[in-house]
Amino acid sequence: MDEVKVIEVKKSIEADNNALASQIRNKLSEEKTLLLNLMSSPGSGKTTTLVSTLTKLKDKWKIAVVEADVDSTVDAKTILDAGIDAIQLHTGGMCHMDAVMTQQALDELAGEKQDLIILENIGNLICTAGFDVGAHLNINILSVPEGDDKPLKYPKMFEKTNLVLVNKIDAMEFFDFDKSKFEENVYMRNPKARIIYISAKTGENIDEFVKWLEDELVKHTSGA
Amino acid sequence: MDEVKVIEVKKSIEADNNALASQIRNKLSEEKTLLLNLMSSPGSGKTTTLVSTLTKLKDKWKIAVVEADVDSTVDAKTILDAGIDAIQLHTGGMCHMDAVMTQQALDELAGEKQDLIILENIGNLICTAGFDVGAHLNINILSVPEGDDKPLKYPKMFEKTNLVLVNKIDAMEFFDFDKSKFEENVYMRNPKARIIYISAKTGENIDEFVKWLEDELVKHTSGA
Repeated sequence: MDEVKVIEVKKSIEADNNALASQIRNKLSEEKTLLLNLMSSPGSGKTTTLVSTLTKLKDKWKIAVVEADVDSTVDAKTILDAGIDAIQLHTGGMCHMDAVMTQQALDELAGEKQDLIILENIGNLICTAGFDVGAHLNINILSVPEGDDKPLKYPKMFEKTNLVLVNKIDAMEFFDFDKSKFEENVYMRNPKARIIYISAKTGENIDEFVKWLEDELVKHTSGA
Repeated sequence: MDEVKVIEVKKSIEADNNALASQIRNKLSEEKTLLLNLMSSPGSGKTTTLVSTLTKLKDKWKIAVVEADVDSTVDAKTILDAGIDAIQLHTGGMCHMDAVMTQQALDELAGEKQDLIILENIGNLICTAGFDVGAHLNINILSVPEGDDKPLKYPKMFEKTNLVLVNKIDAMEFFDFDKSKFEENVYMRNPKARIIYISAKTGENIDEFVKWLEDELVKHTSGA
């Protein structure tokens, strides 16, 4: 892919969302494609994290990224420039992705078998957490400047996450971020959540996230 | 006020939102109370900015803050601890305030004449921008770590803002934030927006925001 393909999404019918989400998940499982839903606040570093991570995986696995935004193609261009396939969804003002949007993106990507598709959801900690988009796993990024109290204010996001990436740890000294308080807040919402501290900018600890992704990829693409 | 009063908001009827918002705005104008709507991403520093600003105004003006969150009373407690009246709204999972919520907060504050009421809206750049809450002016905070491209991705927030506070400028050297690119992006959405660069943490340039607030307070509380 060289140019950003923009999809203006059609109106979604919410009543069918959960049924469609399950259908998408089952079909992708059969096809041995892993679908991840990446969520965060605006500016937490979703795109930078994807670039620093996926460039380490792209020669071994077939990967595509679906960017969702109200407007602009900034993020899809950044992903494409890094040599990774990407398409851009424009959500028509909506503050979250849903299963209908996922389906539209999958229709666009249908030409080739993918090992991994990552949905970069809208920058938002509330609405995004309320909709099943058909993903196998949910990842959320919390950047250090946002503060350690976010699990207290945004319960659903942290209840449904499988992996919390704490980004911008290179700027830790500039902010009052209490790691143990943060972990306590996360585990109160979700005792099973995995937490990985990274800096997408410097690359620090990115390999731990790469390993997590590869482990999940092996699980989902091998076996019956 | 010593303890945080929490209001679990009632279900809002959206059809009446704009009419109620206008009614609230007109009534507060008559009463010479200035109502501001403060919006930002999660963790941009809304509460810290309010504390560092309002402590400089609270001896001269009667001020109250309305905190809206999905859960927790963290922010209202912080404001109260700084000696400023605050009440906490719990939005029942909703991603934005609306005029019905404002009215409920005003009912709680009805005992005393206020000069300034600030609504600290939910941390969210999309939903919050879509609802008239009855405020006279909209302020939005964008913190440096979030990046200079946010006006491209969140058009409505920047179209409807009267004042953009760029917070966390003390961390500028740690992030790739291009001021002139940011200003270009803001003015593309809204040529009339005022931009003030601050650090709520160090207090740098807070006086410029204090002056802006006092100018607006004088306008709204004096004259006919």
